[in-house]
Amino acid sequence: MDSSKKINVSIIGATGYVGAELVRGFSSHPVFELRHLIGRSFAGQKFSDVYPEFRSVCDIVIEDLSPEEVAKDSDLVITALPHGVSSQQVPVLLNAGCKVIDHSGDFRYKDLATYEKSYKLEHPHPELLADAVYGLPEFYRDQLKDTKLTANPGCYPTCSLIALAPFLKNHLIEEDSIIIDAVSGVSGAGRKSDLAYAYCELDEGFKPYGAVGHRHTTEIAEQCSFLAGKNSGDIKVTFTPHLAPFKRGMLATIYCKPSKSLEDVTSAKINDIYNEFYKEETFVRVLPQGVLPDVKAVSYSNYIDVNGVYDAETGLIKLFSAQDNLGKGAALQAVQAANAMFGLDETTGLKTIIRGV
Amino acid sequence: MDSSKKINVSIIGATGYVGAELVRGFSSHPVFELRHLIGRSFAGQKFSDVYPEFRSVCDIVIEDLSPEEVAKDSDLVITALPHGVSSQQVPVLLNAGCKVIDHSGDFRYKDLATYEKSYKLEHPHPELLADAVYGLPEFYRDQLKDTKLTANPGCYPTCSLIALAPFLKNHLIEEDSIIIDAVSGVSGAGRKSDLAYAYCELDEGFKPYGAVGHRHTTEIAEQCSFLAGKNSGDIKVTFTPHLAPFKRGMLATIYCKPSKSLEDVTSAKINDIYNEFYKEETFVRVLPQGVLPDVKAVSYSNYIDVNGVYDAETGLIKLFSAQDNLGKGAALQAVQAANAMFGLDETTGLKTIIRGV
Amino acid sequence: MDSSKKINVSIIGATGYVGAELVRGFSSHPVFELRHLIGRSFAGQKFSDVYPEFRSVCDIVIEDLSPEEVAKDSDLVITALPHGVSSQQVPVLLNAGCKVIDHSGDFRYKDLATYEKSYKLEHPHPELLADAVYGLPEFYRDQLKDTKLTANPGCYPTCSLIALAPFLKNHLIEEDSIIIDAVSGVSGAGRKSDLAYAYCELDEGFKPYGAVGHRHTTEIAEQCSFLAGKNSGDIKVTFTPHLAPFKRGMLATIYCKPSKSLEDVTSAKINDIYNEFYKEETFVRVLPQGVLPDVKAVSYSNYIDVNGVYDAETGLIKLFSAQDNLGKGAALQAVQAANAMFGLDETTGLKTIIRGV
Amino acid sequence: MDSSKKINVSIIGATGYVGAELVRGFSSHPVFELRHLIGRSFAGQKFSDVYPEFRSVCDIVIEDLSPEEVAKDSDLVITALPHGVSSQQVPVLLNAGCKVIDHSGDFRYKDLATYEKSYKLEHPHPELLADAVYGLPEFYRDQLKDTKLTANPGCYPTCSLIALAPFLKNHLIEEDSIIIDAVSGVSGAGRKSDLAYAYCELDEGFKPYGAVGHRHTTEIAEQCSFLAGKNSGDIKVTFTPHLAPFKRGMLATIYCKPSKSLEDVTSAKINDIYNEFYKEETFVRVLPQGVLPDVKAVSYSNYIDVNGVYDAETGLIKLFSAQDNLGKGAALQAVQAANAMFGLDETTGLKTIIRGV
Repeated sequence: MDSSKKINVSIIGATGYVGAELVRGFSSHPVFELRHLIGRSFAGQKFSDVYPEFRSVCDIVIEDLSPEEVAKDSDLVITALPHGVSSQQVPVLLNAGCKVIDHSGDFRYKDLATYEKSYKLEHPHPELLADAVYGLPEFYRDQLKDTKLTANPGCYPTCSLIALAPFLKNHLIEEDSIIIDAVSGVSGAGRKSDLAYAYCELDEGFKPYGAVGHRHTTEIAEQCSFLAGKNSGDIKVTFTPHLAPFKRGMLATIYCKPSKSLEDVTSAKINDIYNEFYKEETFVRVLPQGVLPDVKAVSYSNYIDVNGVYDAETGLIKLFSAQDNLGKGAALQAVQAANAMFGLDETTGLKTIIRGV
Repeated sequence: MDSSKKINVSIIGATGYVGAELVRGFSSHPVFELRHLIGRSFAGQKFSDVYPEFRSVCDIVIEDLSPEEVAKDSDLVITALPHGVSSQQVPVLLNAGCKVIDHSGDFRYKDLATYEKSYKLEHPHPELLADAVYGLPEFYRDQLKDTKLTANPGCYPTCSLIALAPFLKNHLIEEDSIIIDAVSGVSGAGRKSDLAYAYCELDEGFKPYGAVGHRHTTEIAEQCSFLAGKNSGDIKVTFTPHLAPFKRGMLATIYCKPSKSLEDVTSAKINDIYNEFYKEETFVRVLPQGVLPDVKAVSYSNYIDVNGVYDAETGLIKLFSAQDNLGKGAALQAVQAANAMFGLDETTGLKTIIRGV
Repeated sequence: MDSSKKINVSIIGATGYVGAELVRGFSSHPVFELRHLIGRSFAGQKFSDVYPEFRSVCDIVIEDLSPEEVAKDSDLVITALPHGVSSQQVPVLLNAGCKVIDHSGDFRYKDLATYEKSYKLEHPHPELLADAVYGLPEFYRDQLKDTKLTANPGCYPTCSLIALAPFLKNHLIEEDSIIIDAVSGVSGAGRKSDLAYAYCELDEGFKPYGAVGHRHTTEIAEQCSFLAGKNSGDIKVTFTPHLAPFKRGMLATIYCKPSKSLEDVTSAKINDIYNEFYKEETFVRVLPQGVLPDVKAVSYSNYIDVNGVYDAETGLIKLFSAQDNLGKGAALQAVQAANAMFGLDETTGLKTIIRGV
Repeated sequence: MDSSKKINVSIIGATGYVGAELVRGFSSHPVFELRHLIGRSFAGQKFSDVYPEFRSVCDIVIEDLSPEEVAKDSDLVITALPHGVSSQQVPVLLNAGCKVIDHSGDFRYKDLATYEKSYKLEHPHPELLADAVYGLPEFYRDQLKDTKLTANPGCYPTCSLIALAPFLKNHLIEEDSIIIDAVSGVSGAGRKSDLAYAYCELDEGFKPYGAVGHRHTTEIAEQCSFLAGKNSGDIKVTFTPHLAPFKRGMLATIYCKPSKSLEDVTSAKINDIYNEFYKEETFVRVLPQGVLPDVKAVSYSNYIDVNGVYDAETGLIKLFSAQDNLGKGAALQAVQAANAMFGLDETTGLKTIIRGV
């Protein structure tokens, strides 16, 4: 790839929080160039009028263009749309010749029935599910190189799967008793006028939500099955999300049992397994033994920190992973996938995006 | 009890956060009257100079008195001291004829070996363990009426045990696979100059800590055993605490499996079990079916909110409980126990202490 | 007043944040008893379903009654309604024989033109302005004893006027150059679904708003005039409010110039002036010299902390005051006024309502 | 400058919050390369062990080297040391041939007496004051090109001076009545184990501090004098800092009176003055008329947002500016100055460092 040639990227649904984080990610990218920012309700305004953080950084005027129009001069289109809407617009974009990264749940599943049950929708284009690549570059980078359609993973699934993968791939844990207890910052709920997300309703609070049947449960479960070399539906997981009073970040605490293949398990051994499995990965940071992930250390970045311990008293393994829900959990992971889809080094433009203190 | 006669209560270790919450609780109490506030490093200052919130509410001068001196004119002494210190001062207070409520771990265990292993200390007065009453009024109120020594429960144990009790007492869950995932506000760490608890180190962060061997694990486990009618050590639990960016509050999310005695389990049935079990309890609020606890609703109060759901996909029960770590989790629960120890209605002075919006 | 006889108090507009704080204040009050809670959109629900903090504390069912119906069995009605609505409902309540405390701006002004210009409304009952008492008990307690209608002051005016009063009453500052720079917590904006008050839009932010012409400017100015023994309009003030990322609390930093009457001004002298002026006041806490107010020490209470310094370099006096915007700044001050209106000790039910740590 | 040739930059005092922000700024810089990170108490540890945010971004081992040793292979040394320490180490570095940017107050003043009075220190190298350039590139970029020693401005001074400069330079305001009311996030206090900055002591609080004689007062005043073409000491300012519950960011609200030169002043005219004055500046963002600065929009960046209004009622001008206290207020401004000192475009490596949502 000639890095002096810019790749045009457009965002449909640019004015939500995921959209804004995509704009941030691509604004400092040396190869991709933002072409169109699409957002119906803010059309005509500058992006930086909606997000004053971006004044002088991205003053592009938001447009209300059809997918066809967007596709005309875009090499890549990223859709940050509600599920059910994505499944209608993405095929149009693909037909027009663009590559697409979609942020909804519409193309994340291989099993149609699981999608339709989880999202309570009939999929208008089930034929695309087989070709769509699940956009976790750490596991699917080979397929990303060749795909036209990437389904960007959910935030909770990314956080959970990165933590579980070394153990599922190598069959080191029992597959029938995985429990994922996770916590998200408020930005995960998106940008909306909703009393439930008002400052005074959330500050100094902490609560579970969606305690049964949260959609990400089946997404996590299907990918766990694939990581373990099984079929969709073979593995089920218990998943409980919580809402915490910070804007950005996510932590998963995962409980599982060592399988018979995992002998003489200790916390040190768990740390070794992570180090071995992720030794080539830039964005998965295996913490030193005894150091546990903290949301603070990863928020506003594409890094995800992992570690685990063994509780000898009860014989359970505890795995921990922390990431930014909009970063590695959404938009910056999409930048990473975009790099992979266009043959760039996956880390391009991403390594030094951190928040610092 | 003649309620016009005031009962003298003194606090040793009054200037920590638990101490301050005790002062708050007793300042508005119609029967107890604060007599001595003991705190070595602030002796000579007014309590309200250390905690300006209390100006005009409690301007008592902090003293540095020996336990013997405190005992002279106190009916009840509350010790908010580090473990290992309590075990030395409490016997002195008891010998001097006071009733005592102790906030450390020193008198919470019935099994000496478990205490000594958990706290890495040799207990100087193991003979007191048998008589000390574990200060959870909901379970031990009969014993509280007659005891001289109450061991105020840990915050995580209170939160966990209130949620688990109906299921353990009635043998409705498997006892060998209880997992407690809990979250505390920062005040749980106490009042200290420690970079780890500095504002900039914690704000916008979220992290697990003490992921193996946190002391409250064995305290929870021993009480679970007793609730189930077993001996100390018979039940073990998996416990993981996390630190969240708010000052006050605690939430426990508990995973367990229905036992054979619990047939046809549903979320509605779990709600019914709670309602039946806690129908006489003022401070345990069983939320309506489908409503889950939120730290915001209980912080700064003595209330604890509980509810649960059944995950039919994986066959697990999820129990949730929220309380204030310094309130029901420490100081206000001590006020409740003090009421019980002196024959007062347990709710005296506590019902309307809430934070509101 | 026979304190065993309960006084019926009803709240119209009970489900906003001011309403909720009124419910908190009266729930623990030994003399007033909540009779009706009126809120159209939540009628039929329990108050504690809207505010789960109040479960078991206030489970009254919210009603949608007309002012006439509310008046039937209420001794006091507190209206927490938008301006323009209050001015229509309050006369109905007064005609029905109730005493009223109104939280809007509709009855706070003596000068009709100033009100109508500030609120851009025509007042339907200007004849009531003369009789309405401005509900700052520290200045108007004699009038409160006899009034049927109390106009509860705005939050910024309370905070500003308590700080300025000793200097205006005694003509110790120049009256033509008062600058009030103030900061409010988010609850001041009320309970509403509005993106501007969403968690992610405010957390970690801080900003001025209403930088010219905020309504409280004229309310402050009129009362400053009265405190100085002048007519409405004689004193003008410069006022700038800011929004800060906390739920409750307010701080005013006030700049003014010593008048010729104030000789040899020092910070100590300013402290003395405060101590002398407020020596009989329970809720105005004059801090020790050198100690400045902190929102944290007053939030969730009816206390207001004040102090001041003299900047010898520039010859300016800086006055500081901190209060809770919903407490002393609104609902708890209304409880204090209600006490005064019904001949109770003003501190009844209020002294020990503090948040603590 | 050949941008392929890296410039070696070292940081003495790298483990404080300013140091960490310098590391963040230079980690993504295309020309500067971090050479030594000096921090006595953490020597031997990796920087990313102290700040886990930086894992894989900056894993340099912290050293305890003398200034002479640091100077050997550094083109630029940035000192983030306490005042009084800087004044001793900086001359050593200069003698060794390095360029230096110092973050303390030691070289910010031109008038020795003002420095010595403000900092209560005797300056060991007063001869350096004349040559040191005050590192506000917007005003002193020509001098920065040639200097060996840059005194990085204080955070409050940067925020105040950027807001005031157009009015002082053009004599549009009265110089004897400037009032600066400012608010800082907690990171401004630095990284330390101090109860005063503990999470529970600051969360939900807001307070003034240093209400008389804060050191930045004289720094602001001296630079105001210079901007107005006067001598040090000619202009005095009233300054009040406050501490707010967020990690990063600063807002100044400034009150001043239009001079006779400023005729027909309106808010629109103030906005025009800003736009004209800063039309060539990348990092000073003049907001649209009617839009006021918000800390949220600038934190974690090198941008500073400004705007102003005219209060026709009282005849005062209000100016507002918001920046990040560690960014434009300290470390990122130092990167901007470093760019200027080495002949690079001032915006190099800084334009896209923003936090986003």
